[in-house]
Order: sequence, then structure tokens, then C-alpha cells
Amino acid sequence: MRNGQRLANGLRQVNIEYGVQPYADGSVLIQMGRTHVLCAVTVEEKVPPFLKDRGQGWITAEYGMLPCATHSRGRREAISGLSGRTHEIQRLIGRSLRMMVDLRLLGERTFRVDCDVLNADGGTRCASITGGALAVRMAIGKLVAQSKLAAMPPLLPVAAVSAGVVGGQPVLDLEYSEDSAADVDANFVMSGDGRWIEVQTTAEGAPFRPELFTAMAELATAGIGRLLMLWDQDGWQG
Amino acid sequence: MRNGQRLANGLRQVNIEYGVQPYADGSVLIQMGRTHVLCAVTVEEKVPPFLKDRGQGWITAEYGMLPCATHSRGRREAISGLSGRTHEIQRLIGRSLRMMVDLRLLGERTFRVDCDVLNADGGTRCASITGGALAVRMAIGKLVAQSKLAAMPPLLPVAAVSAGVVGGQPVLDLEYSEDSAADVDANFVMSGDGRWIEVQTTAEGAPFRPELFTAMAELATAGIGRLLMLWDQDGWQG
Amino acid sequence: MRNGQRLANGLRQVNIEYGVQPYADGSVLIQMGRTHVLCAVTVEEKVPPFLKDRGQGWITAEYGMLPCATHSRGRREAISGLSGRTHEIQRLIGRSLRMMVDLRLLGERTFRVDCDVLNADGGTRCASITGGALAVRMAIGKLVAQSKLAAMPPLLPVAAVSAGVVGGQPVLDLEYSEDSAADVDANFVMSGDGRWIEVQTTAEGAPFRPELFTAMAELATAGIGRLLMLWDQDGWQG
Amino acid sequence: MRNGQRLANGLRQVNIEYGVQPYADGSVLIQMGRTHVLCAVTVEEKVPPFLKDRGQGWITAEYGMLPCATHSRGRREAISGLSGRTHEIQRLIGRSLRMMVDLRLLGERTFRVDCDVLNADGGTRCASITGGALAVRMAIGKLVAQSKLAAMPPLLPVAAVSAGVVGGQPVLDLEYSEDSAADVDANFVMSGDGRWIEVQTTAEGAPFRPELFTAMAELATAGIGRLLMLWDQDGWQG
Amino acid sequence: MRNGQRLANGLRQVNIEYGVQPYADGSVLIQMGRTHVLCAVTVEEKVPPFLKDRGQGWITAEYGMLPCATHSRGRREAISGLSGRTHEIQRLIGRSLRMMVDLRLLGERTFRVDCDVLNADGGTRCASITGGALAVRMAIGKLVAQSKLAAMPPLLPVAAVSAGVVGGQPVLDLEYSEDSAADVDANFVMSGDGRWIEVQTTAEGAPFRPELFTAMAELATAGIGRLLMLWDQDGWQG
Amino acid sequence: MRNGQRLANGLRQVNIEYGVQPYADGSVLIQMGRTHVLCAVTVEEKVPPFLKDRGQGWITAEYGMLPCATHSRGRREAISGLSGRTHEIQRLIGRSLRMMVDLRLLGERTFRVDCDVLNADGGTRCASITGGALAVRMAIGKLVAQSKLAAMPPLLPVAAVSAGVVGGQPVLDLEYSEDSAADVDANFVMSGDGRWIEVQTTAEGAPFRPELFTAMAELATAGIGRLLMLWDQDGWQG
Repeated sequence: MRNGQRLANGLRQVNIEYGVQPYADGSVLIQMGRTHVLCAVTVEEKVPPFLKDRGQGWITAEYGMLPCATHSRGRREAISGLSGRTHEIQRLIGRSLRMMVDLRLLGERTFRVDCDVLNADGGTRCASITGGALAVRMAIGKLVAQSKLAAMPPLLPVAAVSAGVVGGQPVLDLEYSEDSAADVDANFVMSGDGRWIEVQTTAEGAPFRPELFTAMAELATAGIGRLLMLWDQDGWQG
Repeated sequence: MRNGQRLANGLRQVNIEYGVQPYADGSVLIQMGRTHVLCAVTVEEKVPPFLKDRGQGWITAEYGMLPCATHSRGRREAISGLSGRTHEIQRLIGRSLRMMVDLRLLGERTFRVDCDVLNADGGTRCASITGGALAVRMAIGKLVAQSKLAAMPPLLPVAAVSAGVVGGQPVLDLEYSEDSAADVDANFVMSGDGRWIEVQTTAEGAPFRPELFTAMAELATAGIGRLLMLWDQDGWQG
Repeated sequence: MRNGQRLANGLRQVNIEYGVQPYADGSVLIQMGRTHVLCAVTVEEKVPPFLKDRGQGWITAEYGMLPCATHSRGRREAISGLSGRTHEIQRLIGRSLRMMVDLRLLGERTFRVDCDVLNADGGTRCASITGGALAVRMAIGKLVAQSKLAAMPPLLPVAAVSAGVVGGQPVLDLEYSEDSAADVDANFVMSGDGRWIEVQTTAEGAPFRPELFTAMAELATAGIGRLLMLWDQDGWQG
Repeated sequence: MRNGQRLANGLRQVNIEYGVQPYADGSVLIQMGRTHVLCAVTVEEKVPPFLKDRGQGWITAEYGMLPCATHSRGRREAISGLSGRTHEIQRLIGRSLRMMVDLRLLGERTFRVDCDVLNADGGTRCASITGGALAVRMAIGKLVAQSKLAAMPPLLPVAAVSAGVVGGQPVLDLEYSEDSAADVDANFVMSGDGRWIEVQTTAEGAPFRPELFTAMAELATAGIGRLLMLWDQDGWQG
Repeated sequence: MRNGQRLANGLRQVNIEYGVQPYADGSVLIQMGRTHVLCAVTVEEKVPPFLKDRGQGWITAEYGMLPCATHSRGRREAISGLSGRTHEIQRLIGRSLRMMVDLRLLGERTFRVDCDVLNADGGTRCASITGGALAVRMAIGKLVAQSKLAAMPPLLPVAAVSAGVVGGQPVLDLEYSEDSAADVDANFVMSGDGRWIEVQTTAEGAPFRPELFTAMAELATAGIGRLLMLWDQDGWQG
Repeated sequence: MRNGQRLANGLRQVNIEYGVQPYADGSVLIQMGRTHVLCAVTVEEKVPPFLKDRGQGWITAEYGMLPCATHSRGRREAISGLSGRTHEIQRLIGRSLRMMVDLRLLGERTFRVDCDVLNADGGTRCASITGGALAVRMAIGKLVAQSKLAAMPPLLPVAAVSAGVVGGQPVLDLEYSEDSAADVDANFVMSGDGRWIEVQTTAEGAPFRPELFTAMAELATAGIGRLLMLWDQDGWQG
């Protein structure tokens, strides 16, 4: 039995609070159990050089962790420099969020998504994507309210969840104690219509049979379906 | 008249929440109006090299700001490197907090105080000191509870507050809109018995008469007296 | 029809040359079509600090690209610093190669695998893994020949290959012109017994249906089977 | 009794030499006892980006120390990077010197003040300010002589001095042996008309009573009055 | 007797392969015995800022070494930063190659020469110059073929060779085992007409008599004559 | 005719002042005309790791330039990082000074020579070597005076001077205006007995005939003979 009586296919308690950073153009505090991530979006009226004069927008992400977010204090990356892990995660978040909207409908603007982990108990990259997508929606809504965009563009809901194999059994949404004991570790990013955006799977101790991948993918598909219900809740207009 | 009907000698609404980062040895979220700082203490069972084998402890601080804490998004210092302002502030916090206890009573331990600004509306360095002192007390209490320290050492309550001259008038605890218009800007760190720990005063537009300094010092002395009542509130044992 | 009459499930011409860097403990130049990667292994008689006194070895990788390996010259990372992409790739190579042997059978040694791309035409990370595994085998063989290891430990053959969806069709082992036009991009690392080690899949333009993933996985499984025949060729004892 | 028979309110011997760096637009070697600082000003015909097209000038400072300026050789900051202390000092010098002239009278120019410590025996930041102000005056004079400025703008003489509490007694202008034994350490920057520009006070071992601050401020006020007589000496026109 | 029966005035076996990096504008793999350097030229249609609008071109070099090129693996400079030795060598290569053509005949273009050492057995900077000059010629030839230059400009053949004093005897073209035992170490860069471009001589253990310099210069002059015959061989038009 | 009526074989006015940095173990201010370099030696009671337990000492150098030492202010290397030119010069100074004494007679000590240019008018690296050698002698003398060395070890006087070809004529000891117009630029480091330590020669505009090298070497040999008379002057025992 998992912590808190969770079943193999159970998600942790999810909670969303909008508007926690009032200076940002959109902000969300997402809590998945004891994992808490603050996602804030800044809209800049320009695009990176490689997109100059292409008539489209851009979505990019930065990821950080407060030093005391983890069990053993981490070094502040302002001192140690960005780790390889941070690079990897922020690239994943950016790629995933760029799938949620036709970038040509955003104008020549950059949506910069800051994902800062206040407390980490596993699944911080997935929570960053799930929360970041909601914060981007809020920022787009603000542009519409300010008449900078004529209308809300069609949005593809995007969310992410981890899955893994622990003690031989496929489970959904691992917390840290499970993650550190897992045989296989996977992250799934999907859209609201059941299509896939990113899949990353890593064998931890030994190679694994493809059937286990299939089982994890099924857990994730169901889990993401439930996470996407967050898109229907109130409050996102800040 | 100041925002929110505040008088010249009024503090903003202060709120303290303990235990917001459960992996830390002590943590405090301090809110002074719209300025929110998360202060978290990690106790390390060693001291910096220059204190090796001196039989004493050490208290040091690091300071950071989430990118969206301010009106215009700041660059992440993990990318840009620590600014001069950050260096200056974290040295000030460290020096101030080292006054709150006889370091020889802490054992050969380092108390590392992370002060991370979630929202900035003026006075973040002062809030970091006021909140950091409470978080250090909480971390020392945990050592006593764990029997790593035999008894609670005598603590000198420490707090800080800003003062300034705005439109010719001395005022206490400036928010950002006042700070950016001030003629003089000052920060006072004091102990519970009315003695001074650090005073920093800066003319913004022109040199100022010494009488204005005296008026600001009086405002600060009274304000810190009220802030130190936070030490008597419940909840700090986490 | 693909370049060089290749079928959707065809691999590019693969060639292995052993011993190209005689000062290394094992070295391999792997060519997959116009992608050329030099993989060289250095054996160090110590392990990283986090493995100290655990009685096991370690395998880690570094990845680089000569500035003129690509169509537009890349900046030298000795000047620009390691990119996020480089971090991501070298972590992937390291994790993959650690699956090929029980690390406890290597002694307290680090196998440092340098993968340097001389020419890049797509699939450099996969070529690095496929070639790196052969170079590690060569380095282990040298330890046995030097009697530093009593016997050759059991090795799990490991290889990697890319797959993708181009113009709606799943294809194997993409070259650069295909990769830059792909709808989906995937990398598969597998062991000789058909189990999976790492899978990374990324939607490039839009989310994709799960069936496409299944088709790519089948192409990759067959392709890796053919790549693993390189393990039976002569020459690896340098 | 202090070194060299100095009284508590005595300054060290002060000496100014103009023109020591002939390529600079203004340069001063200031000696306060064994503390020697070379202050050199370069005038650049542009302003920092944040002042673009505001029709005003700017004064900024950089501070350095030769490795052998101190008792134990310091690491060269070209190798170790700028320390927090250096950042703090150069920001203080810049803020202080910007008070000496109405920046709108300088044209769109930057006065870059390099303060390099040749020998350090306490009070280097104060000597940098006192000497830097004289070097700025010299550089402004050169602009007038070159007809780049129509007339000498009104200048507010600025100087700085340290004060402290040593063995319970307030003293002026501490040398290193006093500084390292002080209970309180303070730096005062003032203008020629007795107004204050910057005050920084730090408790070294324990908080201090406000009366001690008042005593230090009185010593500093008198000391700065004497330092400002340097402005009436010959030679500054280089 | 030297390795491989070489006489004191003997060169190692030299081999040139053109076109090894097809994406470059000119590329050469030069082998001098066991020293192998890959020289690749990229032509950029702009010049560095200091040459803007001067109507001339520029030639510059970067130098690197694969980690396993040397007997003990070297740290990757992408991690450790460029060493002083690397800076020194790439400045030497750039200065030397700029002598081979009147830069005004190249148009406002930069020829960036990447010299990457695959295997190092002494003399890598000399091999980089000798090979780099051939790669620059190839790149200029490509510009002519593309009609970007009207005609091949006159080229001054340039090559370089090391000399040294080993066991009291002057010798030419040292390999690593000789280099590390040498009393004097010298590098000569010369043009095809017997004039000198760069000479660097270093005493290793003790100062040396000027006559030894004369003997080394004579060896080098003869050796460079033979190296310049590489300019008459086929294949350089890639 | 050269500035100040100097003949082609004339040195600029040389002046040495000892003891200018009293905290250093040896210090010299050397002035060659308008080139002024402060050379200071720190003796550390340890050697670099690669010399551990070899029973010998080490001499190494660091080189810097005050920002206003040159006609156009240079960026502070504490901000920009060490340039390639700085690396090259400090390696040259270190190699040259290590020739002046049998390192086994120094004990396991490092002599760290800081050469800081106060004013630069050509020839700063040569002045650093000539002055640095005198400062090292002074530091060794101090060790003898402190009985840390039993006796003064035999010293080989070392000095350096530049030569060049200006307007077709070989000249000695170039000042900046000559250096920037030179066809050939050379630096010679020699010992008191006429032997050579380092020779660096660079063609500036075109390759040069070997006869010009011979002429420069003769000028330098005579010039260094005169510079070495500085070793017989008083004052070096500080």
C-alpha cells in the first residue's frame, strides 16, 4: 500500500492557486501532495533573434529550486551555475508548453515561464508543466482582456505526470520515496485529446521489458485525463 | 496620506507562518504588506575553514529573489551571476543574525539561512533579517529537542526596519512606491534592548541634514520595538 | 524514397574502427553514414566521491562536437560553456552505458567515455552510445589483459538508434535532412535481449497518436538487433 | 595612546599627488598614513543604457587592490572574481561621488573612477572617496580647459572618514590594527556644508548603545572638515 | 639514434588528407608521425568590429585538443575553460596565417581556422600552422570557384617546424619523448622564400649559448623547405 | 631621431625603487622611461601539487595592468577575465625567473611574483622580468636574514629588453609609439653571462630577413649587459 492509502493508479491531492505573484502576467501555485511549484509567466513584447520577423510568438521556460526545497539542502545555482539536470528540465517544459497553442496566434511575443520549486517530493518537472500550462492560459487571457490579442486563441490543454515501476508494479505519480526506489522512471506529457507530446523513460537498475512501458503509458493516460479537469475549474482569470 | 491610511510611524501588516519548508531545520514565511520572504535555516555539522577547531558555531545567509517577485521580471541570478546588490544584502543579513546568540554556545555548526523573496514591495532585506532571526530560533529549538544542544542558549531578539525621508517627511517601513521617491533611505537593525547592530543611510538625491537622521532613528527604534513582539507569538516550535 | 535508396526500416552503412586514439584505454571511431563519432575510454583508478568505499565502479561520459562538424559552424564550448543540449546528451550516454555491466565487477574504477563528433549528420547521441559501448568493452578487455581484472565480466550488449515520423511515415535512423523535417523524433536505447534502457520521444510540430510510438518502437527494436551484430566482429581487442 | 602619538580625534598624515597616471583624464595618489590609493578618472562620451537620451551624465567607480597591498597576499580578483566586499565598496564610492555635482551639468558623459589600493592599512574605501572626488574635479577641469564644458559647474566638496569604538573609546580614522580590534566600525561620507551622504555602522562583537553612534558622528564631522581643506590646495589642474 | 632511425635533421613522415570535414569551407587532416591535427576553415561574410569598413579580411584561429589525444587524459576545456597554453597557441597560429596573403584581397571576410588535435606526439602547434595554411588555401580556392573572389590572390606559402637541443645536440621536429627531455625548445614559422615570421625559443633547464640558436635555425630552415613541398601536391581543391 | 634624442642602441632612463610595498617579501618599482611596473614577491611555505615532496622550490608570476595604465582605458580583468595576452606574459615571466636560481636551494617554497603595470609605454613584459628578478633577489635575501635559508644561494642575474625594426632600422627598447609602427617586434631574455633564456620574434606586417634578427640580437645583448648593472646598485636589501 502506498503512502496515504493511494492505489497504484492514484494521483496525489492536486491543488491550484492562481495569482500568487501579482507582478507576473499569469501565476499559479500548483501543489501535488507535498510537491509545490510556483509557475509565473512574463510576457515580453519581442521574440528571440532566431524568430525575428517571422510573425510568430515563443514560449520558453526557466526552472529553479529553492535551496531548502529538498531533503538535503541543494547549492544555490546562482552560485554553482545551472546543472545539467536543470537544463534538461527547462528544455522539456518549454518544448511541452509550445504545443498548447499555434504560436502564430500570439503575435511577436515571448511567454517566459518561471517554474520555481518551493518543496520537492517527486514529480517537479511534471508539476511544472501542468501548472505552467495553466499560467500560460492566464497570461494569454490577460492579453485578451487588455485588447492586445483580439480573441482567445484555441488552446490545447497540456499536462504531465510521472509513472514508474516500484517493486515490480507499475504505479502512477511517484513521490520521492517511491522515485528513489523505482526500477523504471518515466515522464509522460500529453494533450487533452489523448495524443502524446513527450515521453521519457529510464531504466534505473536494469533494462526492462516493453510490457512494463505499456502499463505505465496506460496509467499515465488515465492520470492525465484527470489532471486536465483542472482546466475547467474557476479562478484562472486571476 | 500613505497607502492604506498608514501614518508616518506606521508599520505595514506583519504576518508570520512557521514551517513552510518542512525539509529545512527552521522556516518562516514573513509577510510585511505585499513583501513576502521565505526564510529557511539548514544546520550543518561543520564550520567554515577559518573557524576550524575554535569551538564555536557560525551563522551565514544567502539571499535570492524569484524572477517574477518584482514589477519588471529580474534575470535569474543562476544565469546572470550574483549581483553586487545581492552580495551586499546577504553579508548584511549574516552579520546581523550573528549578533543574536553567543556563537560559542552553538557547537561547531553552521546555520545557513536562505532568504528567498517571493514578492518584493520594498524592505526585503529588513524582512529577511526579521524573519531570518525567527527561523534561526526555530532551528536552535529543534537542536534542543533533538538533544544535540543541552539547553536553549540565551537569545538576543533581533529585527530590522527601513525608514526614509519622503517629500521632506520622515516615514517608517517604506513600500516600493515610497522607496523609489525617497530623498533618504535607511535601514536599521537593532536588538530587543534598544541597542544598534547595523545602520545604513544613503542620500538619494542630495546630502541631508543630520536632524533627519535622528528623526529616522527614532521612528525605527519604535518600529523595531513593535516588530519584536513577534518573538512572543506562538508557533515557532514548528 | 530516402537518400541512398534506403527503406523506411533501413540503417545507414555502419563502420567501426578500433584503436584510433592509441593513448586511450579503448577507442572506437564509429561511422553511421556521414555521422562520425570518436569514442575513447580512459580508466581512472578511483571513483567519484559519492561512491567512495562502496566497492563498485562507475561509467560516465562527456560529449563534444568539433566546431566544423555541422553545416553551420558551432561555437566552441570551451568558449561558450556547455550547452543544455550537451548536458542532456552526456547524461543519457552515461546512464545507458552503466547498464552494460554489473558495476561491482569493475573494482573501484571510473570509465570515462569521451564521445567527440567529427561529422554530424543526425543521430550523434545514438552513435555515441553504440560506439561507446564497444570502446568500454575494449577498455575492460585491456584491464583483463593487464591482469587488473581476473576475468572478463559478463557484458550486456547495448546499442541505440533513432526513429521518427517523416511525412506521416515511421522511419528508422534519421539523417539530418530527415530529422529537421520530422513530426516526431525518438531515441531508443536497448540491450541485446530486447529489453529497454532509455526511450525519449518528442513531438516536433504537434502531439502524435500513440500508434505512431508503437511503430517507431518496432523499427527501433529490429534496427538495434542488427546494430548489435557489431559486437561479434573482430578487432576490438585493439 | 595611538600609534604615532595620535589623539582619539586625530587624522593620519594626508598627502595628495596629482597626475600620477598621465593617460587618465584626472588622477590622484592619496596617502592617509600607510594607506595609499591611486584614483584615476576616465571620461567616456556616452552614458549607460538606462540614462540614454536623458541629457545628463553619470559617475561610477571600480575598486581593486593589488595582491600585495595587504599583510597576507590577497588573491587577484582577475582570477577569483569580484568579491562581495569589492562590489559593496565600489557601489558606495559611486553613490558618494554622484553627490558632488548636478549630473545634468556634465553632458552625456560617464566619469569612470578607478580606485586601486597600492597599500592598505585601514580606511581604503574612505580614502577612495576623498581622493576620487579630487580626481573627478581634475577631470571636469580638463573638460573645461578643452572647451568641452563651457564653465566649471558648481561642485560640492565630498570626503569620507572612518570612525570606530576601540577599547570602549570612540576614535577617528582607524588604521588596520585598530580596525581589527574595534567594537564598532563606521564610515561617514559628508559634504562640505556638514550634511550627510552615507553612513554605515556595524557592530563587530555586540550591539552598541546609540550614544556611541553620536560620539562617532561628531568625530567624523570634525575630521571631514579638516579633510576638505585638501580642496584648497594647489596642483589639481594637473 | 632517434626513434624510427631518424637523423638529427630528419622530419617525421608527413601526410595530408583534404576534405575530411565536408561541411567546412576547407579542411585538412595533417599527420606528422603520431601527431594528428584536423584543420578546418569556415569563411564568415563579416569581419571583427575593429576592422569594420576597412575593406579587408581577417584570419583567426582556435585550437583544441581531444581529451584522449595525450598520454594522460586532459580535462575538456569546455569544462575547465581555455588554458593559458591554448590562448598562446591560437594567437600564434592566427598571426602566422595572416602572413600568407594580402588581407585586402580577401574582401570583408573572416577565415576562422579550427585546429583540433586528435593525437598529440609533440609539435602540435607547428602542425596546426602547416596544415592550417593548406586549409586556408583550399577555402580561398572555394571562394574563387564560387565566383565570390574574382581570382586566386597571390599566396605566400607558410609552414612551421619545431627544433630543440636534446642531449646537447640540435635536432629537428621533436616528438614528445624528445620534447620532454630537451634543454632548449624552439618553434620556427617561415615563408617559402626563407624569411622568418615567428621564432619562439625557450631554455628548459638552463640558459643556452647563442650558437645553439643558430644551429636550430639552420635545421628549421631546411626542414621548412621540405614541408613546403606539400603545397605542390594534388588534392587541395577538395 | 628617436624621442629624447635616443640612439638606435639606446636604453630609456631606468630607475629602481625598492620596498614600495612593505607587506611584500620583496618589492621593486621599476621605471623604464614612462613604463612603470610594480613587482612584488610573496614567499609561500608550500609548493604547487605537481612539485609535492620533490624537495625543491618554485617561482611563478602573475601580471596585471591598472585600467588607466594605457592610453585608452582597459577593462579590468577582474571583470572581463584574464586575456590571452595576460596568460602569455605571465607564463613568460615565470619561466624566465625560474632560470635565476637552482630551485633545489630554495626549500619547498613558492615565490609568487606580482607584476602590476602602473603606466604602460611599451616593454612592460621586459620591465616585469628585469624588475621581478631584483624583487626575487630581495625576497631571498629576507629569507637569509630570517635564517630560513642558511646562506644566499648563487644567483644568475636575469634581465630582458625589447628590440624591433622600425622604418627598416633595428632599434633597442621600443616605446609605445615605436612599437605600434614596428615591422618586427622581439623580446630577449638573457642571463648575465651572455646566454639566452627566451627569445620571441614576431613579424608585424610581412616576413623578415634573418639578418634583421641577428642585428636585433646584437642590440639586445648589449642592452641587457647595461641593464644588469642594476644588480650592483644599493638598496635591494629593503
